[in-house]
Amino acid sequence: MEKTSIALSQIFEPIRADLEKVDLEFARHVQSQVELIPKIGQYIQGSGGKRIRPAVLLMAARLAGYQGDRSILYAAVVEFIHTATLVHDDIIDDSDLRRGRLAVHSRWGNDVTVLLGDYLYIKSMALALTHDSLDLVRVLCDVTLQMIEGELYQLTKNGDADITEEEHFDIIRRKTAYLFGGCAQIGGMLGKISTEREQALREYGFNLGVAFQVVDDLLDFTGDAQAVGKPIGSDLREGKVTLPLIHLLRQSTDGRAADIVR
Amino acid sequence: MEKTSIALSQIFEPIRADLEKVDLEFARHVQSQVELIPKIGQYIQGSGGKRIRPAVLLMAARLAGYQGDRSILYAAVVEFIHTATLVHDDIIDDSDLRRGRLAVHSRWGNDVTVLLGDYLYIKSMALALTHDSLDLVRVLCDVTLQMIEGELYQLTKNGDADITEEEHFDIIRRKTAYLFGGCAQIGGMLGKISTEREQALREYGFNLGVAFQVVDDLLDFTGDAQAVGKPIGSDLREGKVTLPLIHLLRQSTDGRAADIVR
Repeated sequence: MEKTSIALSQIFEPIRADLEKVDLEFARHVQSQVELIPKIGQYIQGSGGKRIRPAVLLMAARLAGYQGDRSILYAAVVEFIHTATLVHDDIIDDSDLRRGRLAVHSRWGNDVTVLLGDYLYIKSMALALTHDSLDLVRVLCDVTLQMIEGELYQLTKNGDADITEEEHFDIIRRKTAYLFGGCAQIGGMLGKISTEREQALREYGFNLGVAFQVVDDLLDFTGDAQAVGKPIGSDLREGKVTLPLIHLLRQSTDGRAADIVR
Repeated sequence: MEKTSIALSQIFEPIRADLEKVDLEFARHVQSQVELIPKIGQYIQGSGGKRIRPAVLLMAARLAGYQGDRSILYAAVVEFIHTATLVHDDIIDDSDLRRGRLAVHSRWGNDVTVLLGDYLYIKSMALALTHDSLDLVRVLCDVTLQMIEGELYQLTKNGDADITEEEHFDIIRRKTAYLFGGCAQIGGMLGKISTEREQALREYGFNLGVAFQVVDDLLDFTGDAQAVGKPIGSDLREGKVTLPLIHLLRQSTDGRAADIVR
């Protein structure tokens, strides 16, 4: 994982300065008269995170020849959206830890955490509305809806040993890939490239998102707890049947593998 | 309460047909490939509710001379936003009942309920983006943020016998009045009336919202459980110090009233 981190920072090198600006932008927008909001906002930011979604957006914008500073704002917006999901996910999964520290709900309780996630979601929309780019806000709104529907779909398939690979990929596409695709597409939209190239960027991001989630699910079986920032095997314990388990279930001929899920 | 209901239906008579269209619009937009969403959506709709916020929007639109059908869509949007809050509120307050029936979280669990509220919030924004009216979406986004900040502020003041009337009204304004104000303002915006008249409508809605919340808080002490749809005295049990209690606390000279809150 240490090796992976170095590789990631090397990949991010061309946009390092921009990513720092995204962090400042993020901090600036969790300001509120309600003191709890910046307090928890800083706590979340302090816990790190890979900033992959903002990076995809920034790199796509650069690839599309965009030279303005709006990419910083939208990159902060996608990090807001992603953070909102994480905050609510930890309630749903009942995970005590996130990125090696106490999850927000373990420290501030479920009631504050529900509202903080709501705040981050709506604030992300409010920020996206800063400029008069309706198309861009619509992309963000659509991928966020896909994400939430994906999470709901995942819940209905929880503990289901009969889930098919196709159903599993449907969950992955919704909960991860659409947002990655949206990040890349928005970069393209900022650069005002042709619809054809914008769609190509969107597809690249989308497929990157699928790959990212497949690796993430695999790391839950093979990774190192400290590097991953939460206990290994969480998916299995929470009844999430991911690709490695689906393959095990298909290859088990005596039906005993299904006992793992139940 | 029966008397109140009759009075309300009389007030709503001029917009009864429109309110029915709003119900159809609401039902149409909880459709999703994820079956759980329309299922819970229908459950919530079936439990009734007064539809006051859509009514304020529809009446303001009519007052402003608006004759199109966009008011139906935006009225459904404000009901979506309001429903999202209710769904999450019930988790926060741990209320088992809502409008005389099992609350969503009591029936489907907290995890599904968190995601369903998220879905309703983001879907409301997606619906508001249907037409190219950025100003209108911004109003909706702003009042929703105020609402969530108000709820968070209320949580930080929970069980606080020293809360001032001004702090209490700050909570009321944020959690209820801004949305009412937004409903009236949007009606005005649809009718393209002058900024001055639009602001007057906004203020009317805002003050109506304050009055509505004061009465709602009073009914929690004096109302009839069956008419209100949930047990009386919930606020007190949940540590919410509302206006009747603040007045009692101020008038108690021996300090014993504070024991009620603790």
